[in-house]
Amino acid sequence: MYELYYWPGIPGRGEFVRLALEEAGAAYVDIAQDKSESAAIRAIAQALTGKDVAQPSFAVPVLKSGRRWIGQTANILFFLGARHHLAPASDTGALWTLQLQLTLADLVAEAHDTHHPIAGSLYFEEQKAAARQRSANFTDQRLPKFLDYFERVLARTGSGYLVGRRLSYADLSLFQVNAGLRYAFPNAMGALDAALPRINALCERVQQRPRIAAYLASPRRQNFNEEGIFRHYPELDQT
Amino acid sequence: MYELYYWPGIPGRGEFVRLALEEAGAAYVDIAQDKSESAAIRAIAQALTGKDVAQPSFAVPVLKSGRRWIGQTANILFFLGARHHLAPASDTGALWTLQLQLTLADLVAEAHDTHHPIAGSLYFEEQKAAARQRSANFTDQRLPKFLDYFERVLARTGSGYLVGRRLSYADLSLFQVNAGLRYAFPNAMGALDAALPRINALCERVQQRPRIAAYLASPRRQNFNEEGIFRHYPELDQT
Repeated sequence: MYELYYWPGIPGRGEFVRLALEEAGAAYVDIAQDKSESAAIRAIAQALTGKDVAQPSFAVPVLKSGRRWIGQTANILFFLGARHHLAPASDTGALWTLQLQLTLADLVAEAHDTHHPIAGSLYFEEQKAAARQRSANFTDQRLPKFLDYFERVLARTGSGYLVGRRLSYADLSLFQVNAGLRYAFPNAMGALDAALPRINALCERVQQRPRIAAYLASPRRQNFNEEGIFRHYPELDQT
Repeated sequence: MYELYYWPGIPGRGEFVRLALEEAGAAYVDIAQDKSESAAIRAIAQALTGKDVAQPSFAVPVLKSGRRWIGQTANILFFLGARHHLAPASDTGALWTLQLQLTLADLVAEAHDTHHPIAGSLYFEEQKAAARQRSANFTDQRLPKFLDYFERVLARTGSGYLVGRRLSYADLSLFQVNAGLRYAFPNAMGALDAALPRINALCERVQQRPRIAAYLASPRRQNFNEEGIFRHYPELDQT
């Protein structure tokens, strides 16, 4: 039994961990959904700074497995990938999957900073002018460059998956990133759509997997909203 | 024999890999320093997009090891850590070291964005107003929070190292981050100095290691400058 610690009310980076746990069919307690908001926030504080946590994390998501508390999304997925056959067993394949996840993490961080280019601690409204500029650069330059990269990786495997011939956690994460980008930037993603045949096919394949389909149809799956990483602000999606 | 592909003229993220290679006493070709600038840039393009690169990286640094091309700084260090005893051999210890490295990578990305909050493709002068705001938030809030975290981790081990009782690549990276932060933000880091006894002691210990000391005294070690991640712009270091 795992315990997932993440902020209530947003899919956020916790969702990358949830998708891996769901695909694995792993039993887990989701602190954000199984507790009241105030209890969840207390539990997160405990996970990050509790005296019994020998290896404290800087931020959530944190996954508790037995007596271990594991932080950093890509690191959690590396751990789960090895345990639940969501990454190749070989060192080479495991590292390559991690590399792809870290590149997705870079894209996620840049997507976040489109609406918070100045500071995560300020409101969007306090940094809207800078957000417009950063978003224009993101949708014009960075977003196509990242997505073209993943198209190229998919073209090389030719299997429909990013790594080898089987699903990995990187595929689940690309599915989530694609969903978030389409929520936040429908115009920009619409303009790129024809250039993303392999990513689109991968996402279709992911959402048809029985456990993922069941998860997406369940109340456990959260909608995107304007509190999370991927936010839809029409003024940031002008193309 | 390794080959390191990274941009010429800056220490940048390549420096985290160089420090690990130097501490390991590993033989490596540094493309940025062993080739002319134009030849280095052609070699980087080949490393990122060459047809013989089965697993292409999105960006440098890239480390070539035999026929493998490995990207993403933390991923390269995970690979080198296992090969050169720069991380614990146990799965738990290896993942914990990776987690610390990923948290350092988050700090590095935020330090970079202080001078480029809008876009990496624009000049600093084109985003100076936003940079001032982001830097003020970084030095007031984010920087102390990150450094306090690493102080807490060092307090828990009590060994003078971040992980267990031996040097790991995360220690080398913290040394480099500290050096970069002191270059970029001498006022902010000076104000924090008294709160960083364990980080300061760790950095002293790292720079006295024989191979690191020899490297730092060699022409291979590059100075920080205003082209890299850590840049000294006095207007961003107002405290």
